[in-house]
Amino acid sequence: MLSARDLAASIRAGRTTPRAVMEEAAAAIAACEGEVNAFAALDLDMALRASMLKGLDALPLAGLPVGIKDILDTRDFITAYGSPIYEEHRPITDAPVVGMTRRAGGIVVGKTVTTEFAFLEPSATRNPRRLSHTPGGSSAGSAAAVAAGMLPLAIGTQTGGSVIRPAAFCGVTGYKPTFRLLPTLGMKTFSWHLDTIGLFAARVRDAAFAVAALTGRDLDIGDEMAEAPRVAVVRTARADNASTDSHAALETAARALEAKGARVFDLDLPEALEEADAAHPVIQDFEAALSFMDEYVFARDQLSPLLAAHLEAARTITPEAYDNARRTAKRGRHVLGDLFRDVDAILTFSAPGPAPEGHATTGSAMFNRLWTLMGCPALNVAGLTAANGMPVGVQVVGRFGRDRQALAVANLLEAAITS
Amino acid sequence: MLSARDLAASIRAGRTTPRAVMEEAAAAIAACEGEVNAFAALDLDMALRASMLKGLDALPLAGLPVGIKDILDTRDFITAYGSPIYEEHRPITDAPVVGMTRRAGGIVVGKTVTTEFAFLEPSATRNPRRLSHTPGGSSAGSAAAVAAGMLPLAIGTQTGGSVIRPAAFCGVTGYKPTFRLLPTLGMKTFSWHLDTIGLFAARVRDAAFAVAALTGRDLDIGDEMAEAPRVAVVRTARADNASTDSHAALETAARALEAKGARVFDLDLPEALEEADAAHPVIQDFEAALSFMDEYVFARDQLSPLLAAHLEAARTITPEAYDNARRTAKRGRHVLGDLFRDVDAILTFSAPGPAPEGHATTGSAMFNRLWTLMGCPALNVAGLTAANGMPVGVQVVGRFGRDRQALAVANLLEAAITS
Repeated sequence: MLSARDLAASIRAGRTTPRAVMEEAAAAIAACEGEVNAFAALDLDMALRASMLKGLDALPLAGLPVGIKDILDTRDFITAYGSPIYEEHRPITDAPVVGMTRRAGGIVVGKTVTTEFAFLEPSATRNPRRLSHTPGGSSAGSAAAVAAGMLPLAIGTQTGGSVIRPAAFCGVTGYKPTFRLLPTLGMKTFSWHLDTIGLFAARVRDAAFAVAALTGRDLDIGDEMAEAPRVAVVRTARADNASTDSHAALETAARALEAKGARVFDLDLPEALEEADAAHPVIQDFEAALSFMDEYVFARDQLSPLLAAHLEAARTITPEAYDNARRTAKRGRHVLGDLFRDVDAILTFSAPGPAPEGHATTGSAMFNRLWTLMGCPALNVAGLTAANGMPVGVQVVGRFGRDRQALAVANLLEAAITS
Repeated sequence: MLSARDLAASIRAGRTTPRAVMEEAAAAIAACEGEVNAFAALDLDMALRASMLKGLDALPLAGLPVGIKDILDTRDFITAYGSPIYEEHRPITDAPVVGMTRRAGGIVVGKTVTTEFAFLEPSATRNPRRLSHTPGGSSAGSAAAVAAGMLPLAIGTQTGGSVIRPAAFCGVTGYKPTFRLLPTLGMKTFSWHLDTIGLFAARVRDAAFAVAALTGRDLDIGDEMAEAPRVAVVRTARADNASTDSHAALETAARALEAKGARVFDLDLPEALEEADAAHPVIQDFEAALSFMDEYVFARDQLSPLLAAHLEAARTITPEAYDNARRTAKRGRHVLGDLFRDVDAILTFSAPGPAPEGHATTGSAMFNRLWTLMGCPALNVAGLTAANGMPVGVQVVGRFGRDRQALAVANLLEAAITS
């Protein structure tokens, strides 16, 4: 995989150039894309020309190639949101996160595949670790492009588990920052209280480098690691759905952290947070019914049967049920805030198991959706493997707004399991 | 002015028809629009055809004509956001609030004028109460169309004071519901933590009827009035900026409420809320710099000098300043929540005075922006007049999520000052 942070440093040190990096990416894309199908749109000629502009090395991203999930508006590319309804849609403006990428000196090489409207219908993307397995969803192309070494950085989104899950399945770092740290404008909305922009990169430090470059925030932590963090291992009421591989990975991660000086302890998820977990689909679906009202009314025959049926059911959720779910979520946030007084990070499953074989499903978000609803930072840390040799991720969840701390714990965990 | 609630009742009772109401609106538009300029786009033929569809009377809005502020996406009309950059922009989908209008049986007759991107550059709309005066902004066309009797209902938006201020200046009911009660999707975003959809109607009961029709919530309070509400009169640290007319209107409103049995008392705004007031522009502008990044980079020469200069300054706001402002806002919400334990509604100024003469400015949002930031429901109650005969509004602010209570207090106040 390509390290964004190392590549940018090499460019700045004069050891390589944006053009050479872009050519390397183009060669990897030429070699892999035919099998992986990570891209919904691609313009390498434009990217190669852009990589020759003067002054890129003075910008944070130093001319690195970046992929943008095709659920985000781009002025230079068709933005189809994974749906035939939008197959000719060319937005007038870039989504702000795309503008932030350009501002930071990133070069958008193309749009990465999203499942239909970032929902559950599987996409054409294949898992580069094993093509017979799903890459996960909905940010399938972003995860696969980074995993295949085609791109050092890709932007994705998560409403349930669409960053952490594909990152886990493809064995890359997935980083869902604190809610709204990256603006969601210009993203095709599924649920406005849940939709979150996230990043895919090779390692934790690369994701930290990228979010710092995009936002100008002090988050580029490099090799900095949390010192003796208090880490709560949380298995949740859904622990029985986690496979032997996932339980083993969580145990391995916990022991590795301990060996690095972390204070690791088991924690039962408070009941208020189990209730918040159950509130997630109510909030998501009530809002989705409104978000997709136009498509549902005017273009239902162009929706997948899976999404059409889901939206039909979603329309029956009452405002009262929605309000109750929102109150439950608010209580959950208070309880989680209290919990984080005694905890620096939560360690939990990234997914029920490694990537499922076949392409009938993109896997489950059951271990992600609570953290999306809580809005707190979450990372998939890669490095462990299942019995079948496929990647198994573990998830680090941090306190709302404390992304630097979450990244530092993830860095420690990554070092612990890969050393 | 046209009462939405009464017209819908008349249609349902068979005393009139959607077609007859539409023709009445069309006649008023033909008579007034030449002077008022409330519409950015209009299709009365389409609206008249739509008003002949069967079954409209069974729907909540019963075929009533509705205007949509041109900051909201519509599939049937050019949506220019008040900017030449978008003068040919025809969105693919309706904003959900437009879809909700259609679902409720409202007929969209046209787009009402917005100032450029709902900011401060004055529009071509004139105040129907006196054409020499500003209608306010940014929802200029929505307020003017209702004030002139051209429409019973119009949808607007508020980021600072863009619903309450023009409602006050034009002498109509303006209702800014609790933040996100109406979804902001498909609105050209200025600031995602502030942008709020609001409604314009003749009287408080009409606004209540409309929000109930759009959302299916139990908010159609009719003549229901709050019983002996505890009303805090809040003048804020900016009281010196309120004119003699505004102070007199506030005093009149307070005494009228008292005469109706309300328990009215003065309240100094807690310091935490004065600080939150000052945080509003930091949040608004930091987000605006990101929201308009594309237009600023690619089409700066097509922005008004006012907005271009504002965005240029906004780019200097640091993430730290923004985070601090967000924390200040959060503290403010807690303090306001506590305050509302002993208060049913706040009574305050809608604007510093009646509509300023001339068209060089749309007036000030200084008495609105705090309530936008707090996300609580707010209404302009019309009925009082300035020494020069122009309307002076007073503002009722309610507790977050308690829109029914806010509407019931506004109903009481309206009855008190108009009886």
